[in-house]
Amino acid sequence: MAIKHSQFVIVGLGRFGSSLGRELIELGHEVLGIDLDEETVQDMSSVLTYAVSADCTDEETLRSLGVRNFDCGVVAIGDDIQASILTAILLKDLGVKKVVAKAMSELHGRVLEKIGVDRVVYPERDMGIRVAHQLVSPNLLDYIELSKDYTIAELAVPKCLNGKSLNDLNPRARFGCSIVAINKANGIIIAPSATDVLTERDIMVIIGTNEQIEDFEATVIR
Amino acid sequence: MAIKHSQFVIVGLGRFGSSLGRELIELGHEVLGIDLDEETVQDMSSVLTYAVSADCTDEETLRSLGVRNFDCGVVAIGDDIQASILTAILLKDLGVKKVVAKAMSELHGRVLEKIGVDRVVYPERDMGIRVAHQLVSPNLLDYIELSKDYTIAELAVPKCLNGKSLNDLNPRARFGCSIVAINKANGIIIAPSATDVLTERDIMVIIGTNEQIEDFEATVIR
Amino acid sequence: MAIKHSQFVIVGLGRFGSSLGRELIELGHEVLGIDLDEETVQDMSSVLTYAVSADCTDEETLRSLGVRNFDCGVVAIGDDIQASILTAILLKDLGVKKVVAKAMSELHGRVLEKIGVDRVVYPERDMGIRVAHQLVSPNLLDYIELSKDYTIAELAVPKCLNGKSLNDLNPRARFGCSIVAINKANGIIIAPSATDVLTERDIMVIIGTNEQIEDFEATVIR
Amino acid sequence: MAIKHSQFVIVGLGRFGSSLGRELIELGHEVLGIDLDEETVQDMSSVLTYAVSADCTDEETLRSLGVRNFDCGVVAIGDDIQASILTAILLKDLGVKKVVAKAMSELHGRVLEKIGVDRVVYPERDMGIRVAHQLVSPNLLDYIELSKDYTIAELAVPKCLNGKSLNDLNPRARFGCSIVAINKANGIIIAPSATDVLTERDIMVIIGTNEQIEDFEATVIR
Amino acid sequence: MAIKHSQFVIVGLGRFGSSLGRELIELGHEVLGIDLDEETVQDMSSVLTYAVSADCTDEETLRSLGVRNFDCGVVAIGDDIQASILTAILLKDLGVKKVVAKAMSELHGRVLEKIGVDRVVYPERDMGIRVAHQLVSPNLLDYIELSKDYTIAELAVPKCLNGKSLNDLNPRARFGCSIVAINKANGIIIAPSATDVLTERDIMVIIGTNEQIEDFEATVIR
Amino acid sequence: MAIKHSQFVIVGLGRFGSSLGRELIELGHEVLGIDLDEETVQDMSSVLTYAVSADCTDEETLRSLGVRNFDCGVVAIGDDIQASILTAILLKDLGVKKVVAKAMSELHGRVLEKIGVDRVVYPERDMGIRVAHQLVSPNLLDYIELSKDYTIAELAVPKCLNGKSLNDLNPRARFGCSIVAINKANGIIIAPSATDVLTERDIMVIIGTNEQIEDFEATVIR
Amino acid sequence: MAIKHSQFVIVGLGRFGSSLGRELIELGHEVLGIDLDEETVQDMSSVLTYAVSADCTDEETLRSLGVRNFDCGVVAIGDDIQASILTAILLKDLGVKKVVAKAMSELHGRVLEKIGVDRVVYPERDMGIRVAHQLVSPNLLDYIELSKDYTIAELAVPKCLNGKSLNDLNPRARFGCSIVAINKANGIIIAPSATDVLTERDIMVIIGTNEQIEDFEATVIR
Amino acid sequence: MAIKHSQFVIVGLGRFGSSLGRELIELGHEVLGIDLDEETVQDMSSVLTYAVSADCTDEETLRSLGVRNFDCGVVAIGDDIQASILTAILLKDLGVKKVVAKAMSELHGRVLEKIGVDRVVYPERDMGIRVAHQLVSPNLLDYIELSKDYTIAELAVPKCLNGKSLNDLNPRARFGCSIVAINKANGIIIAPSATDVLTERDIMVIIGTNEQIEDFEATVIR
Repeated sequence: MAIKHSQFVIVGLGRFGSSLGRELIELGHEVLGIDLDEETVQDMSSVLTYAVSADCTDEETLRSLGVRNFDCGVVAIGDDIQASILTAILLKDLGVKKVVAKAMSELHGRVLEKIGVDRVVYPERDMGIRVAHQLVSPNLLDYIELSKDYTIAELAVPKCLNGKSLNDLNPRARFGCSIVAINKANGIIIAPSATDVLTERDIMVIIGTNEQIEDFEATVIR
Repeated sequence: MAIKHSQFVIVGLGRFGSSLGRELIELGHEVLGIDLDEETVQDMSSVLTYAVSADCTDEETLRSLGVRNFDCGVVAIGDDIQASILTAILLKDLGVKKVVAKAMSELHGRVLEKIGVDRVVYPERDMGIRVAHQLVSPNLLDYIELSKDYTIAELAVPKCLNGKSLNDLNPRARFGCSIVAINKANGIIIAPSATDVLTERDIMVIIGTNEQIEDFEATVIR
Repeated sequence: MAIKHSQFVIVGLGRFGSSLGRELIELGHEVLGIDLDEETVQDMSSVLTYAVSADCTDEETLRSLGVRNFDCGVVAIGDDIQASILTAILLKDLGVKKVVAKAMSELHGRVLEKIGVDRVVYPERDMGIRVAHQLVSPNLLDYIELSKDYTIAELAVPKCLNGKSLNDLNPRARFGCSIVAINKANGIIIAPSATDVLTERDIMVIIGTNEQIEDFEATVIR
Repeated sequence: MAIKHSQFVIVGLGRFGSSLGRELIELGHEVLGIDLDEETVQDMSSVLTYAVSADCTDEETLRSLGVRNFDCGVVAIGDDIQASILTAILLKDLGVKKVVAKAMSELHGRVLEKIGVDRVVYPERDMGIRVAHQLVSPNLLDYIELSKDYTIAELAVPKCLNGKSLNDLNPRARFGCSIVAINKANGIIIAPSATDVLTERDIMVIIGTNEQIEDFEATVIR
Repeated sequence: MAIKHSQFVIVGLGRFGSSLGRELIELGHEVLGIDLDEETVQDMSSVLTYAVSADCTDEETLRSLGVRNFDCGVVAIGDDIQASILTAILLKDLGVKKVVAKAMSELHGRVLEKIGVDRVVYPERDMGIRVAHQLVSPNLLDYIELSKDYTIAELAVPKCLNGKSLNDLNPRARFGCSIVAINKANGIIIAPSATDVLTERDIMVIIGTNEQIEDFEATVIR
Repeated sequence: MAIKHSQFVIVGLGRFGSSLGRELIELGHEVLGIDLDEETVQDMSSVLTYAVSADCTDEETLRSLGVRNFDCGVVAIGDDIQASILTAILLKDLGVKKVVAKAMSELHGRVLEKIGVDRVVYPERDMGIRVAHQLVSPNLLDYIELSKDYTIAELAVPKCLNGKSLNDLNPRARFGCSIVAINKANGIIIAPSATDVLTERDIMVIIGTNEQIEDFEATVIR
Repeated sequence: MAIKHSQFVIVGLGRFGSSLGRELIELGHEVLGIDLDEETVQDMSSVLTYAVSADCTDEETLRSLGVRNFDCGVVAIGDDIQASILTAILLKDLGVKKVVAKAMSELHGRVLEKIGVDRVVYPERDMGIRVAHQLVSPNLLDYIELSKDYTIAELAVPKCLNGKSLNDLNPRARFGCSIVAINKANGIIIAPSATDVLTERDIMVIIGTNEQIEDFEATVIR
Repeated sequence: MAIKHSQFVIVGLGRFGSSLGRELIELGHEVLGIDLDEETVQDMSSVLTYAVSADCTDEETLRSLGVRNFDCGVVAIGDDIQASILTAILLKDLGVKKVVAKAMSELHGRVLEKIGVDRVVYPERDMGIRVAHQLVSPNLLDYIELSKDYTIAELAVPKCLNGKSLNDLNPRARFGCSIVAINKANGIIIAPSATDVLTERDIMVIIGTNEQIEDFEATVIR
C-alpha cells in the first residue's frame, strides 16, 4: 500500500517472523532476516533480501550488520523472553526508527513498552480471539472491530438466502445494520440498492453493532 | 454472535489455545480445556468452564472425558506435531461434529486435512501477514481481504485530512474506491454523504481494489 | 519371485528396514536406503544399491533424490511417529506408486491409512503372535493362517513317530486334517500315499482346522 | 494347539512382548508380564494374568516373583542389551525350564546363546525378510520356507485365472509345482482334482521349489 | 546505621543475596528471602525473618506474599536475566518503594534502569576492581574513590616505617597527600599531629590524588 | 599504585575475573587470562595482554603456558569448586609467588587455605555486606571498616544541610565523630575548619565509631 | 587381626567402599556407611551396622550423624573429586582420628595430603599393577613387594615339578632365592627341608630379588 | 618375571586399565591400548606401544586392528557392562589366546565366565578387602592369603620391639606362627635365627594361621 521500498530487519525467523518477512517481500520491501539457527536462515535466504545467522543480543554483531540504518526493526523471537528484551533495547539504542516486538505474555509486553518499543504485538492471543469469533458464527469469514460496539462483518451468503433481494431482508429497518457491499462472482457491488439480489456463495459486508449483527444472523440465516 | 451455548473442547492451552478459550467463554459458550501441563491447567481453571490435565493421544482418556458430546473440538497443541495429528484423528473417530486444528507447517496442514480435520488454521502465518500490512501502511488499523483483488481497509484519518469533506477527497472519482463508513467520536456514519467532514482521529472504512486503496493512501494521506 | 528389477526406496534403516533391504537386494531388486544417522548409512552402503543420509520429512530433499520414480516406497522409521507420517504423505504426494509403512501402534496405523498409505505393516505385533504359536507348540516350525479356521502347519516329526506310516496315523479319518507333503532328507514328497513312512527329523506339512491340528498334535505326538 | 495351561513370564512389554503376551493369553495360557515402566504395566494389567513393574536384572526381585516355577521365560526387552543379557542369565540360573530371548543384533544373539538361552529370536530381521517377499510378489499372501529349496506359498487367485480349472493350469507338468489346497468362499478343498475350477478371490496353496513357483507366477499370473 | 527496622524483600538467595540478607538482619532489619530452590530456602530460614520458596515472575505469587508493603526490594537473582527483569518490573508495579537489582552485564543493567529500577549494582564487577587495587598495592587494605582524582586509602604501616614520626614522612609537603587518621592497637588518632609516631601494624588513613598516594607508596614504603 | 609492570595470570574470565583483569590492565600491568570457554577468551583478547583457552587442571598445560614465571596467579573460576582447588594447588606447586583464589563457600575457602593459597577472597559475600550497609543508610556512598569499632564513611550531603557550617553541626562535640574531608565541586578540603560550609551534593568523609556515625546520621540528616 | 571393635564410617558405598565395609564387618568391626544414593544405601543396610543416605559435604549433616566419635573415616567416593575433598576436610575438622581417602588421580591425591588426610589409597592403580604381574607370570598367584628389590611370591607348582624334591631344584644355590613354605593339600610346611617333595597343585612361597625369582621361573618352570 | 615380550591388548584405559598398561610396559612387554575417548588415548600414547581410539564392540574394527595375533586381551572397560560383554566375546571369537576381563558385579562376572573369559578380576572388590585388613591392623603392610586358614603377613616392626631378638619373641612356641624373613635397612635375612635382633622400621615376614597372627599382633605389638 503506502511506504515504498522501506528496509525492515526481522530478528527471529520462526513461523510468525518468516510469514511476516515473506509478506513484506511480496509487498515490495527489503528485508534482512536474522536468526540464531543456521538451517532456518538457509531456508529463508532464497525468500528474503538477506538472511544471516547471528546472535542479536550482542551489540557489536548488530552494529556490524548496519542495523541502525533500517526503517523498522521487528523482534519476532519465538520463546526466549530474555533475548527478545535485550534485542529490543539494542535496536532502540542503535537508533532504529521504529521497533515492533512480539510479546509472549502480558508481563513481557509491559517490559517491552517500558524499554521503549514502539509497538507490541501478541499474534497468538489476537489470532485466538479471531478464530473464536469464526467458530461461533459459521458464516463469518472475517471481521473488523471498528469500536467497542461497531463491527464490519464479512458473511457468506447461505443457501436459504438464495434469490432474496436486499428489500426482502431489509436489515436496516429490522435490525439496524447495513449491507455496504456484496461480493459476487462477477464483481463487487458497493452500496448495493434494495433491488440487488443475493446468490448462494456471494459474500456480503455488513456494518452494525455486535448485537444487531448477531440478531441479523440468528434470525435471517438458517 | 450466532450459535448460543455451544460446547467446545480445546486441546492445548498455550498462548493461542488459552486466548481462544477465554474469548469463547466471553462470547457465552462452555469450554473444556485440556493440557498435559498441570500448572497451565491450574492457571486456566478459573477462566474456563472446566480444565483438566490429560494426555489426549490416549483414546480411553478422551472417551472418559466425554469428548464425543462436544459440538466442536479445537486441537491447539503448540509444538508437538505427532500429538496434534493423533489427537485430531481421535476427536474425529470419537464423533466430534467439527474439528479445527492449528497447523505448524504447510505439510502438517496437509496431513490434518487428509485425516478429516474440518478446518486447519495457521495463526502465526496469518498474523505475520496481517502485521506486515500494518507495518507498511501506518494508517492501516485493520483490513479484510474480500477477494484476491478487493479489500476493506480501516484507516485512521491523519492530521492532513482534518476538516476535509468527502467531496474534497472524492475517492470514487479519483481512485475508484469508496468510503462506506466513518467512525467518529460521537457515533458511526454509514454510507456517508459527500458533505460529511473528516476530523483527525476519525476512522474511515474504505472498499476498493488493493491498487486503488494504495493510490488513495499514497496521494491523499501525507 | 515375480516382478523383476523393481526399484525400492526404504526410509529408516533400523533392524526391520535393513533386513528388508538386504532381502530385496538378494531377490534381485534395486534399493535406495535413506536414514538420518550417518553411521547407519555407512554400514548399509556396501549392502544396498545406494544409501544416503537425509531428512525425509523435507519435501525438497525427497524430490532431489528422485524418489518419485521408484516403484515402491517403504517407510520403516523406527520410533518417530511424526517423521513416519510426514514421510509417508510426502512419498504419496510425490507420486510413488505404492507406499508401505510400518506402524508403531494401532492409532499410528489408522493415521497412515487415512493419509493414503497402501499397506500398513506391524512387524513386532505380527512376530509376537508368530512366536507365541511356536512357544505353545514345540513341534510347530512355521504356519500359515489360511482363514479364521484353517491353518497349514509345518511340524517336525518327533521320535515317537519314527517308522510310522501315514496309514498308521490316519489323520484324515481320526482328526479330519491331511498331510499334504513330507519333507525328507533326500527330497520332498508331495501328496504322500498311505504307505509313506515317517522318519525322525522329517518335516510334515499338515492342513486342517485349528482344532483338528491341535487334536492331532495332542494325541499323536508325545 | 498343544501344551495346555502353561505358565509364561515375559520380561519387556514393548510392541513385541505385549503382542506375544496377548496371543498366549488368547491361546489359553497364563502370563506374568514384567516391565520397568509403570504405565506400560498398567496398560497390560487388564490383558495378562499378572503384570508387575520390576527391575529384572536384580536376582532378589526375580526370586521374590517366584519366576523359577514358570515353564518358559521370554526376554523381550526392547533396546537395552545389558538388561537383556543379565535377565537371561538370571532366568537360566533360577531354573526356568526354557528361556527364549529376542536379540537386537547378531553379536547380541551370540552372547545369548553362549550363556545358555534355549532359543534366540530376531523379530525385526525375520519380519523384514517376510515383508520383502510379499512386496516383490503382490499375490503372495504368506509362505513357509520348508527347506533351502522348497516353499509353500499362499497365493491369491487373480482375475485372469477366474474360471480356469487346474487342468488348464497344469502346474505340475508345466512348472513342477503342485497345488495342494484351494481355499474357497464356501470351504477348503484339500488335494484338489484337475477338474476343480478357480474363482477370483480364492486362495491357492502351492508347493514347489522357489524357481518353480517364480516361473508359475511369472507365466500364469498376469 | 540510619533507618531502623526497615522491611526488605530479597529475591534470590545465592552467595550475594544471602550475604546481603544476613548483614541486614545483623543491622537490625526484617528480611523476607525468596528463592526458587527449596533447599536454599531451608538453609536460610534460620537466618532471615522469613524465607519462602516461590517463583517471583508470577504476579499473583508476589501479591499473595504481601510484597507491596516492603520498604525495599532487592533482585539478587544469580544467572537468569529474564527472571531478574520480570521480577524487577513486578516489584515496581506492585508499588515497592525502592527496588535495587543486581545486573549480570552492562546491557542487563540498561534494561533494569529503563524499567524503573532505582539502583543497579554490579557486585562481581565492582569486587574485581577492588581486588585489582589490593593486588597491585600489597599494603592497601581498603580504599574509597572520592572522585575521579581523589582517593582515601587505608594502608598497613610496614616494618620500614616503624618508629617514624609523621614529621619524618611529611607526606603533605613531599607528595601533597595527608594522613587523616592512624589506627593504633590502643585506639584511633584522628587528625594526627606531626609528632605522632608510626608503629608496624598500625593502619594509616591517607587522602590524596591517586598519583600522590602512588608516589607516597612507591617512595616511602619499601 | 605501587608495583610497576607486574605479571598476573587470571584463571577464569567470568564477571569477577574479567573485571579484575580489565582493572589490572588499566593500572598498567600485564595480564594473561585463561578460560575454558573459547568465546569468553575471544571477547577478552582485545582487553588483556594475552588470553588463551585452556584447561588449567592439567599440569602440562599450565607448564607449557610458562605460568611459573608470573608474579601472581588469581584463581577466579566461577562455579566449579573442583577446578578451583586443582588449579590452585598446581599454581602453588609450579612456583607462582603469590596465589589468590575466589571461594564460593566457607568450606571451599578452608580447603584453599589448607593447600597453601596466599589469600582467599569472597567477592559476592563481601559485596553483599557492602550493599547492605548502603541500603540501610541512603546517604552512605562508600565506607571502610578500620576496625571492629571504627569506620570511615563517605556521606552525601543532603538538602537539609545546605549552607550549614561545620560549627553548626559540631559532630565531634555532639557525637564524637570527626569530618576529615569535604569533597566539593571545585576541589577537596582536607581537615576542614569549623567555618567551612556544606553545600548540597558535597560529599563529606567522616571518621568515628559505628554508633557515633549512626547517631550523627539519625540526628543531623533528615 | 588386631584392633577389636573399632568404629568406621565409610562415605561412598560403590564397589570399593561396599567391599571395604563388608570385609570390616566380617573382621568384627562396626561400620556406618553413607551414600547419596538411596537405593545403594538400602542394598547395604542389611550388611553394615548402619547405612544412611546423606550429603557428606554438609557439615551439619556429618555432625548430626555423630561422625566425630568414629575411630576412622574412609572417603571412598567414586567419581566426584569435589565431594571427596570437601568430605575429607570436614571429617578432619570434626575430629575423626584417622582419615583415609581414595584418590582418583595423582593430583587429587596431592590435595588430599595437603588438607591433612592420613592415608591416600589408589585402588584401581594398585590393582592394575598387581594384575599386570599376574598376567606376565601365569604361575604367580599373589606377591608382596618387600622392598624395591625383594619380593615374596606365591607360585603354583606346575606339572613339570611333580615329584621333585627341593634338593632337585636347589633354588638357593642355583638362583639365590629361597622357598620358605610349601602349602600342600594336607597342611602347610614352613621352612621346608631339602627332602620335601613338591606335588602338582602345591603352592610354594619363595623369597628373593625380582631377578632371582624371574630366573627361577624361566628356568625351572616349563 | 617369566614370559618375555608378550603382546597385550587392553580395551579401556581408565584408572585400572592405564595402570595395568603402564606396568606391563615397565615389565618389558608390548601393549596396544584402545579406548573410545580420544583425549584418554592421546594421554596414553606416549606411555604404551600403541594407543588408538576405537569402538571395540564392532567386529570389523577389532579385526582391522589385528587383535587376533595378541597373546592376551584385557577388557578393562569401566562402567559399560554391555560394551564389556560384547568386547569380551569378540576377543574370544577372534581367537585371542587368553582373555581377562574386569567385572563390575558378581552377575557381570557370571556372564563373562559363561561366554568363555579365561579370568575375571574384581579390582575394586579385592582392593576393598585388602584395605580393610590394613585399616584394622596398623602394622600390616601387605599380606597374601595362602589358603582359607594360612596367611603370610608383612608387618612393620614397631618401637616396642626395638632390640628384641627372635628368641625373646619366640613366636613359634607361643603362638604357632613363624618369622620367615626380616627385611633390614642393610639387607634381607631369610630364615632368620633365634639370635637375630629386630630394629624399629625393620619389616618382618610372618607365616601362620589368621588366629595365630592376630594373637601375635595383639600380644606382642603394643
